[in-house]
Amino acid sequence: MSDHRTYKKLELVGSSTTSIEDAIHSAIAECSKSVKNVEWFEVVDTRGHIVDGKVAHFQVTLKVGFRIEGS
Amino acid sequence: MSDHRTYKKLELVGSSTTSIEDAIHSAIAECSKSVKNVEWFEVVDTRGHIVDGKVAHFQVTLKVGFRIEGS
Amino acid sequence: MSDHRTYKKLELVGSSTTSIEDAIHSAIAECSKSVKNVEWFEVVDTRGHIVDGKVAHFQVTLKVGFRIEGS
Amino acid sequence: MSDHRTYKKLELVGSSTTSIEDAIHSAIAECSKSVKNVEWFEVVDTRGHIVDGKVAHFQVTLKVGFRIEGS
Amino acid sequence: MSDHRTYKKLELVGSSTTSIEDAIHSAIAECSKSVKNVEWFEVVDTRGHIVDGKVAHFQVTLKVGFRIEGS
Amino acid sequence: MSDHRTYKKLELVGSSTTSIEDAIHSAIAECSKSVKNVEWFEVVDTRGHIVDGKVAHFQVTLKVGFRIEGS
Amino acid sequence: MSDHRTYKKLELVGSSTTSIEDAIHSAIAECSKSVKNVEWFEVVDTRGHIVDGKVAHFQVTLKVGFRIEGS
Amino acid sequence: MSDHRTYKKLELVGSSTTSIEDAIHSAIAECSKSVKNVEWFEVVDTRGHIVDGKVAHFQVTLKVGFRIEGS
Amino acid sequence: MSDHRTYKKLELVGSSTTSIEDAIHSAIAECSKSVKNVEWFEVVDTRGHIVDGKVAHFQVTLKVGFRIEGS
Amino acid sequence: MSDHRTYKKLELVGSSTTSIEDAIHSAIAECSKSVKNVEWFEVVDTRGHIVDGKVAHFQVTLKVGFRIEGS
Amino acid sequence: MSDHRTYKKLELVGSSTTSIEDAIHSAIAECSKSVKNVEWFEVVDTRGHIVDGKVAHFQVTLKVGFRIEGS
Amino acid sequence: MSDHRTYKKLELVGSSTTSIEDAIHSAIAECSKSVKNVEWFEVVDTRGHIVDGKVAHFQVTLKVGFRIEGS
Repeated sequence: MSDHRTYKKLELVGSSTTSIEDAIHSAIAECSKSVKNVEWFEVVDTRGHIVDGKVAHFQVTLKVGFRIEGS
Repeated sequence: MSDHRTYKKLELVGSSTTSIEDAIHSAIAECSKSVKNVEWFEVVDTRGHIVDGKVAHFQVTLKVGFRIEGS
Repeated sequence: MSDHRTYKKLELVGSSTTSIEDAIHSAIAECSKSVKNVEWFEVVDTRGHIVDGKVAHFQVTLKVGFRIEGS
Repeated sequence: MSDHRTYKKLELVGSSTTSIEDAIHSAIAECSKSVKNVEWFEVVDTRGHIVDGKVAHFQVTLKVGFRIEGS
Repeated sequence: MSDHRTYKKLELVGSSTTSIEDAIHSAIAECSKSVKNVEWFEVVDTRGHIVDGKVAHFQVTLKVGFRIEGS
Repeated sequence: MSDHRTYKKLELVGSSTTSIEDAIHSAIAECSKSVKNVEWFEVVDTRGHIVDGKVAHFQVTLKVGFRIEGS
Repeated sequence: MSDHRTYKKLELVGSSTTSIEDAIHSAIAECSKSVKNVEWFEVVDTRGHIVDGKVAHFQVTLKVGFRIEGS
Repeated sequence: MSDHRTYKKLELVGSSTTSIEDAIHSAIAECSKSVKNVEWFEVVDTRGHIVDGKVAHFQVTLKVGFRIEGS
Repeated sequence: MSDHRTYKKLELVGSSTTSIEDAIHSAIAECSKSVKNVEWFEVVDTRGHIVDGKVAHFQVTLKVGFRIEGS
Repeated sequence: MSDHRTYKKLELVGSSTTSIEDAIHSAIAECSKSVKNVEWFEVVDTRGHIVDGKVAHFQVTLKVGFRIEGS
Repeated sequence: MSDHRTYKKLELVGSSTTSIEDAIHSAIAECSKSVKNVEWFEVVDTRGHIVDGKVAHFQVTLKVGFRIEGS
Repeated sequence: MSDHRTYKKLELVGSSTTSIEDAIHSAIAECSKSVKNVEWFEVVDTRGHIVDGKVAHFQVTLKVGFRIEGS
C-alpha cells in the first residue's frame, strides 16, 4: 500500500581506474543486474589503491536504496 | 552452537503518513514477510517528504537484526 | 572486467564467550558458509552481555566485504 | 534549468508539549509561512525541557530543504 | 553562586510497548524518584526489541541534566 | 574592523546530470546570484537519484561561506 | 502560540586576534545587528590562521539560535 | 511495571597489563562490587600507556547498563 | 591491585559569565566537593546563553575521570 | 617479518583548479617524491576556494598509507 | 606549480597551566622550530589533568597545516 | 619548559596473524625503532584481511603520542 512503502539499502564498493563518478556508475550498473527499482545512492567513503606513485583505482563505498516489491 | 550465535543486520527505510512509530512498525512488518527471527531494530535516521507545507511521509531508516539460522 | 570490480558489504554480529577475536572468527566462519570470496572485515562495534557480574558473551558487529562474482 | 536544480537548507527547532511529530509539524508550518516549496526535512536532534519531573516541551532540531526559485 | 551553576548529566534507557514519547516519559518519571531538579533531556539513541515480527518494546537512550544543589 | 571579520555559512544542495564537480559549480553559481563575496565551500554529503539503473542526478550538499559586509 | 515556539539557527564564523571567547563575542555582536532575540550559541569548530609561527586569528564556527517572531 | 523498565548507564575505564578483554573483565568486576544487575557493556574507546617502547597498560573505556531496581 | 585500576567518568556542565576556562574550573571545583581523586577532564561541548545580544553564560559540558577507591 | 607489516599514514591536502581527482593525483605525486611504497589513500574532506562566484581551487584532504621499510 | 599546491598536516598536543589559547600558542611555537610555513591550525580535542581538585594543565590536540616547499 | 610540554601524534597500522593486541604491540615496537619517548596509543580502527574464509591478518590503526624532545 502506498502509505507504507518500504525500501532496502545495500552497501557496495565500486572501483574505477579513471574517476569517482565512473566508480559510482560501475557499482550501480553491477547492482542493477540483480536488483530492480534502485532509486538512489549515498556516497559513504572514497579511497583508492596507489601503484608506482599513481592512483591505480578509485574505490567508492556507496549505499543504494530500492523499493521492496509489493510494499 | 550456542556459544557462537551469529546475527545479520539489514538496513531498511519505512514510511508512514502518520507517525515515526508507524513507519518503524511498517518496515518491520514488511521485513518479517521474508526474514525469520528478527530480534531487534536500531533507528539510524528520521526524515520525511513535505507537500503543500505539510508532512506527507515520515521516513525512518532503521537496521534490523536477526539470528542466522543454524548458527 | 578488472577495471570495474564491485564489492558488496554485509553487516554481521558475531559472539563468543571467550574473546573479541573469537567472535570475529566465528562471524566470518558462519558467513563463509553461504558467501564466497570474502576478502576483508571492519569492526564497527564491540559490546557484550553480562551475567552474574561476569562477561557472558562478547558481541562484535563487523562488516565483511566480498567481490560480486562476474564483476 | 532542470539539470541544475539548487536547493537551500534551513535549520529549525520546533517545540510541542505533546509529541515529537507535533514538534516537527509545528516547525514546518511556521517555516512555510515565509518559504515556498519546502520539499523535505531531516531530524538532527531530539531533546526537551523537564518541569516538575515531567516533559514540558519536546524540542526537535530539523533541517528543511526547499528549491531555490528559478533554479 | 548563580554565576557558576553546575549541572550533572545521567544516561538512562527508558522502554515502552507503545511509543518513543512514552519511553521518554517513563525514564524521566523513574529518574525523578531519586533526583531533584531535572531540567532537560537529550535523546541519544532509539532502538527496540522485536517479537513475532512486531515491536515488543521501544528503547530510548537519553541523557538527563539536573542542577547540582547548592551550586 | 579587520580584527573581527564575521562570516556566515549557508547549506545548499547542487545537482548535475554529469559530475560531482558540475553539481558544486552549479550550486555556487546559483548562490552567487544573491550573495556577494562567497569565499569557500565545504562538501557535506554526496548522493544522487538513479533512474533505469543509471545515475540521473548527482546531488552534492555543500556549505558556502561569505563575509558579512561591513564586518 | 506558546506551545509551538519555533527557533531558527544560523551558522557563523567569528574571528579574533586575541581569544576564542572574543571571536564568539564578535560573531554574536555582528549577528545581533540584524537578528533580534538571539537566545543561545553552540560552538561547532575552532581553528585559526598562523603567520610567522604565531596565531594571527582564532576562527570559531558557531551556531546561534533565535526565536522566530510571532511563533 | 514490566512495560516500563528503566536502565542506567555508567561510564568506566578498565585497565590491564595483558589484554583488552582483561581490561573489560576488570572494570565489570569492580563495578559489580557496588552495582547489582549489570546486564550489558559497550566499548567506547581503547587506548593505553607505553613505557620503554612496550604497552604497559591497555585502557578500555566502556559503558555498562543495569536495570534500576523497582522499575 | 595496581594492574587493574578502574576509573569512573561523570558528565558535568559548568557555567561562567567570563570564560570557557572559568566554566571548566567551576565544574571541577563543584565536583571535587563530593568526589575524591579526580584526575582528568575532557571537553565534550561548548555553548552558552545570549541575553540582549551578549554572551550571558558560557556553558561547557565536560567529562571528569576519577579512580575508584580500592581498585 | 611478513606477519608484522607496519604502515604509516600521512595527512595531506592536494589542490587543483579542475577536479577532485586531479587534486588527489597531485597530492599523491607530491608525496611520492619523498616517500616510497605509498599503497593507498583515503579521502577525509573536500572543500575549496571561491573567487568571483567560481571555484578557484578544489582542496582535498586525504590520508596516504605506506609500508615502513624493513617491517 | 601554483595550481597544485600541496599541504601536509601534523597532529600535536600543546599544554599550558593557564589557558586553552596558551596551549595552542605553545604547540605552534614548538612546531615552528622545525617546520616552516605553518599556515593554519584546527582544534581536535580539549582536555586536561586535574591535581588536588584543580586544573593542572590544559591539553589541546590540534592539527597544523603547512605548504610542502616546492609544491 | 615543563609548563609547555608539546607532544606529536603519528598514525600507524599494525598487523598480526594472531590477535588485536599483537598488532598493537607490533606497531609500537616498529615505531620505537625510530621514535623515542612514545607515551601512549589510541586505537582508531580495527579491520583485517580474510583468505579462504579465515582471518589472515588483523590490522589495527592506532595513533601514538610522544613528547617532542626539548619541549
